[in-house]
Amino acid sequence: MMTKKSFVVAAVLVVLLGMALGCCSKCEQEGVVVETDPLPSWNEGATKQSIVDFVTRVTDEGSPDFVPAPERIATFDNDGTLWAEQPMYFQLFFAIDRVKAMAGDHPEWKDEQPFKAVLEGDMEALATAGEHGLLELVMATHAGMTTEEFEAIVLEWLVTAKHPTTGRAFTEMVFQPMLEVLNYLRANDFKTFIVSGGGIEFMRPWTEAVYGIPPEQVVGSSIKTKFEIRGETPVLIRLPEINFIDDNVGKPVGINSHIGRRPIAAFGNSDGDLQMLQWTAAGDGVRFMLYVHHDDSEREWAYDRDSHIGRLDKGLEEAEAGGWTVVSMKDDWAQVFAWE
Amino acid sequence: MMTKKSFVVAAVLVVLLGMALGCCSKCEQEGVVVETDPLPSWNEGATKQSIVDFVTRVTDEGSPDFVPAPERIATFDNDGTLWAEQPMYFQLFFAIDRVKAMAGDHPEWKDEQPFKAVLEGDMEALATAGEHGLLELVMATHAGMTTEEFEAIVLEWLVTAKHPTTGRAFTEMVFQPMLEVLNYLRANDFKTFIVSGGGIEFMRPWTEAVYGIPPEQVVGSSIKTKFEIRGETPVLIRLPEINFIDDNVGKPVGINSHIGRRPIAAFGNSDGDLQMLQWTAAGDGVRFMLYVHHDDSEREWAYDRDSHIGRLDKGLEEAEAGGWTVVSMKDDWAQVFAWE
Repeated sequence: MMTKKSFVVAAVLVVLLGMALGCCSKCEQEGVVVETDPLPSWNEGATKQSIVDFVTRVTDEGSPDFVPAPERIATFDNDGTLWAEQPMYFQLFFAIDRVKAMAGDHPEWKDEQPFKAVLEGDMEALATAGEHGLLELVMATHAGMTTEEFEAIVLEWLVTAKHPTTGRAFTEMVFQPMLEVLNYLRANDFKTFIVSGGGIEFMRPWTEAVYGIPPEQVVGSSIKTKFEIRGETPVLIRLPEINFIDDNVGKPVGINSHIGRRPIAAFGNSDGDLQMLQWTAAGDGVRFMLYVHHDDSEREWAYDRDSHIGRLDKGLEEAEAGGWTVVSMKDDWAQVFAWE
Repeated sequence: MMTKKSFVVAAVLVVLLGMALGCCSKCEQEGVVVETDPLPSWNEGATKQSIVDFVTRVTDEGSPDFVPAPERIATFDNDGTLWAEQPMYFQLFFAIDRVKAMAGDHPEWKDEQPFKAVLEGDMEALATAGEHGLLELVMATHAGMTTEEFEAIVLEWLVTAKHPTTGRAFTEMVFQPMLEVLNYLRANDFKTFIVSGGGIEFMRPWTEAVYGIPPEQVVGSSIKTKFEIRGETPVLIRLPEINFIDDNVGKPVGINSHIGRRPIAAFGNSDGDLQMLQWTAAGDGVRFMLYVHHDDSEREWAYDRDSHIGRLDKGLEEAEAGGWTVVSMKDDWAQVFAWE
């Protein structure tokens, strides 16, 4: 018998498998040249070359820069690095949809901020609620259920939710060039990790199907959980209490806590990733640090120093000073999304 | 140029490699039969058969109990399950040796408990200091340095420290039958994790060499760390503040936080592992739960319901009620340690 949860999981996997197969048949159609280039969505140039050069140096056993396979750890930010993050973080769309879905059980929300703003679609009022308001939204919508119930809620949402401007599923808003980097690194015996400010339990249900990154290689922000036996069934209850914020100075802490070794390559797009890149850069031997710079207002979005979401300011300066790779989405990416 | 740290790491690896090679040549000498039995240190019988049966059921694609490789997660307690834990937890020997090594910089310890007890070798006074006293020892000896400095201290200690009754290195006090289970599971595409009440950073420097378990697959208790830039170098400082206790109800929480999926097999030896085994047992499909029962006073130690270290009381009852596997070290293990 198929439970509701396994149905939802199956539905998500069918959708994602379709995307993957679509990509494969496309590659086949494009013939041999595409198959030998591990990064076909990247335009030729210094940016693409810097990735290939790094991988070649650390995987060539004759190179002084050779790194044994177990130490080939690569960490990726998620929002704005692997998938888009405009017009707002996708997890916030999830929280808003959950407030609407749960509103029937919470008549008091009609008069209470920030819930009132969400229910009335008043984004301005929501913005004035600030970080504290967002935290209240997350706690009200992400806690109070078991870990398994939350996983099912996330997967169910992903099946129906659509991005407001593209109309695509959120799991389709991933960057094709970055999927290629993930695959290229793994083909060279790298272990790829997500290290995101987003919720760890919000990402884990789908990262394996979408990015090929299993749950145990996802690091993120979290709320506390509590083990208890309900009736005769052991469960983990999600509590409305912050456990860890995996952003800024939290990223090296999260990397150390979950991975226990320093990455040799790190990929980000905002100042929130700066400490992860600094931590990566400070290790011995050859290192690779990359910033995705959102400068493509036509195919994606253009924002950096003045953006409230994914601000990239100090990071750009450090990247320049340190000789890190900065990707121009406009110039370096032949294709942005897989469905283009 | 070889730094002091890399020298220590190299020395540890040479010692460990010697152990591994010794084992291999031994296997070769014993011929073909040994090579086809993945668990040669286990006596034939129901216990050994239960392990083989489980692995066969979940890896046979034609079996209704088949589990896809990525979901083959197995978790192992460390103290008392993979290595010995008597006459006291090995990490406590480390803390005591550190107090002695650091005493010169802390003249006040001569008059302050629990440090006074340690310096005077007064184990009775140390015992009366209780959990709070142990915590003070750990904080004084495990915090206040960078993560890299601590790693070097642990590795350096392992080279010289000896177990008080066997005179062996602590990393030799590992159970040969459990090493075989780890290898057997990995040969069948399981991912093996440590989930221990011990310190995560105390284990990670050596688990890959000793158990074949990489740092990113070690879950344990931890203190908080803080990212800061010292001069121009980013470091993680270890703070004297508990972050997470990975014991009892903490084990399912730690598993969920680090691994993000429920194990299908779990191995422990004490009531501190009970919730991990309950959490494992409560999943769908076939599950394997195993308790190592220390009942061999000649080759190892015999203790269970009344022991202060590794007490196994409620767990024994649940194991019986639930039909879990209980290993009699005395009857089920042909060999306990690799050097026997």
